[in-house]
Amino acid sequence: MKKIRVGIVGYGNVGKGVEAACMKATDIELVAIFTRRDPSTIIPASRVAVNNYYDMFNDYYINYIDVMILCGGSATDLPAQGPQIAAWYNTVDSFDTHADIPKYFAKMNEIAKTGKKTAIISTGWDPGLFSLNRVYASAILPDGYTQTFWGYGVSQGHSDAVRRIKGVKDARQYTIPVESAVQRVRNGENPILTTREKHTRVCYVVAEEGADRERIENEITSMPKYFADYDTTVYFISEEEMERNHSTMPHAGMVFHVGETGDEHNKQVIEYSLKLDSNPEFTGSVLVAYARAAYCMNQEEKFGALTVLDVPPAKLSPLTSDVLLTMI
Amino acid sequence: MKKIRVGIVGYGNVGKGVEAACMKATDIELVAIFTRRDPSTIIPASRVAVNNYYDMFNDYYINYIDVMILCGGSATDLPAQGPQIAAWYNTVDSFDTHADIPKYFAKMNEIAKTGKKTAIISTGWDPGLFSLNRVYASAILPDGYTQTFWGYGVSQGHSDAVRRIKGVKDARQYTIPVESAVQRVRNGENPILTTREKHTRVCYVVAEEGADRERIENEITSMPKYFADYDTTVYFISEEEMERNHSTMPHAGMVFHVGETGDEHNKQVIEYSLKLDSNPEFTGSVLVAYARAAYCMNQEEKFGALTVLDVPPAKLSPLTSDVLLTMI
Repeated sequence: MKKIRVGIVGYGNVGKGVEAACMKATDIELVAIFTRRDPSTIIPASRVAVNNYYDMFNDYYINYIDVMILCGGSATDLPAQGPQIAAWYNTVDSFDTHADIPKYFAKMNEIAKTGKKTAIISTGWDPGLFSLNRVYASAILPDGYTQTFWGYGVSQGHSDAVRRIKGVKDARQYTIPVESAVQRVRNGENPILTTREKHTRVCYVVAEEGADRERIENEITSMPKYFADYDTTVYFISEEEMERNHSTMPHAGMVFHVGETGDEHNKQVIEYSLKLDSNPEFTGSVLVAYARAAYCMNQEEKFGALTVLDVPPAKLSPLTSDVLLTMI
Repeated sequence: MKKIRVGIVGYGNVGKGVEAACMKATDIELVAIFTRRDPSTIIPASRVAVNNYYDMFNDYYINYIDVMILCGGSATDLPAQGPQIAAWYNTVDSFDTHADIPKYFAKMNEIAKTGKKTAIISTGWDPGLFSLNRVYASAILPDGYTQTFWGYGVSQGHSDAVRRIKGVKDARQYTIPVESAVQRVRNGENPILTTREKHTRVCYVVAEEGADRERIENEITSMPKYFADYDTTVYFISEEEMERNHSTMPHAGMVFHVGETGDEHNKQVIEYSLKLDSNPEFTGSVLVAYARAAYCMNQEEKFGALTVLDVPPAKLSPLTSDVLLTMI
């Protein structure tokens, strides 16, 4: 059987995660990586071709690659690259700026429809698998209450925010769910929780020599949106300790939905949780499964933008519908 | 907006659960209940019309009801009723004899296609939501391992099996997952577990006066398939105790999928779990959400049989796609 041919756009942590996931998927062939960096500086683990970003608009690749997996960031990369690439390719991405999803969807939808391509946006786990679970659960138990917790794990955005502070050489931020709040939700108490009551934050910071640590700590803990609403602890550590203890990217999270049914107000609790040794490798695995779906749905002429909510679960699987029937 | 008009076929525990779920769904109108019992003996909580089973084949109902929710048992009711009803109505059911699903699907598919109807089979939670989670997780993490646990909760099939033993007046069977086994799976140990190591069973039995309790206990614990492969404990209790302590139908369950990604064999753990005060009310809630999907997908001319794997998640929700986009 023909394998689904994919390309990776952007070879950061998520791009590497997608590459690793392609190696595990027997029906997927990774064809090439496209980057805005100097391709000669990149030696990918899989040894596939590394090309300049603009090489993907050559006829050869346009005719050969079935799906492009977009691994750039949501702040500036995807809003620019998504529409550019979706004009020529089926795409999958993990656009995760929640508030901008409707705008991004509209743009991708228009462009993909015109080019008869399929663009599955905002996959990954949140948005992505967590969105799925929130929608399934609230459709089934409409008289209910949903809570999402994140962590224990490294938040890329928060780590970056700390690294931008003057005098900070390196930083890693861990998001930690408050265990007592999790237990109250799990028990079906439907508690009203403030931001501070749900999560705490811990920052490990390597300061530059001679930097004012007190000022750095104050700038972190008072940073609006990122830290001001949380109990945040800052630890200054050495570069060696950072390298030794904080070089992996674990993450985790939980979606709870508690609903009531019947006259006796029976409580029904749905819990979906992830515990990930490697956040980018897991996100990459989700992207690859949706790349399979994008290819299939394009074959079925479902043109335009789609989200995880529009994709029938069977489309993610390489198994035939006959085999899937025996697994239900 | 027009409400989706549904009928309930069979007014046992699940039928009552569907009725309760209809009351919570603002876009669903419960029109009537159909039963093979004497309709005059049934006074439903919602006070809707109760009709004889065969009344549903009158033109009035055929033209009026959008979806029939089939609440009969899988052993004898659904194999007979499903094809009969799917010729005239969109249907949803919770057919749960796993081994017979392909055969039931084929039959329902043929009949529903001919009548341009949509039949969503085997919804509920297992099969149903658990199937969804097994397929999503194994598609995302193909180098992985899935384990399902059931309980703590009442198993209807096992309770029935005990009730069929001579000298048993009433019985309730609880399935209990072995906590140490659950923990090993949750920790990502991928243990090889025998049937006995995964679950234990506890039976509460009301014996008839003068019945030989030792024989009853032996018949239970040695019953092939149902109990012989498990550590089973039997307690004899009074009718009053049964009524007081065992009249509710709680259930629970967990699906775990542990997969490896990348060269460093990072472990990624996905857990989906349910804790239900009322199994039939939860199953009823799932059936109603899929009834909504059956109606929508029939409008889109998706004729024939479908499973939960074929239904895009958005179809379960009463919310418009614009609203759903803001919830991703």
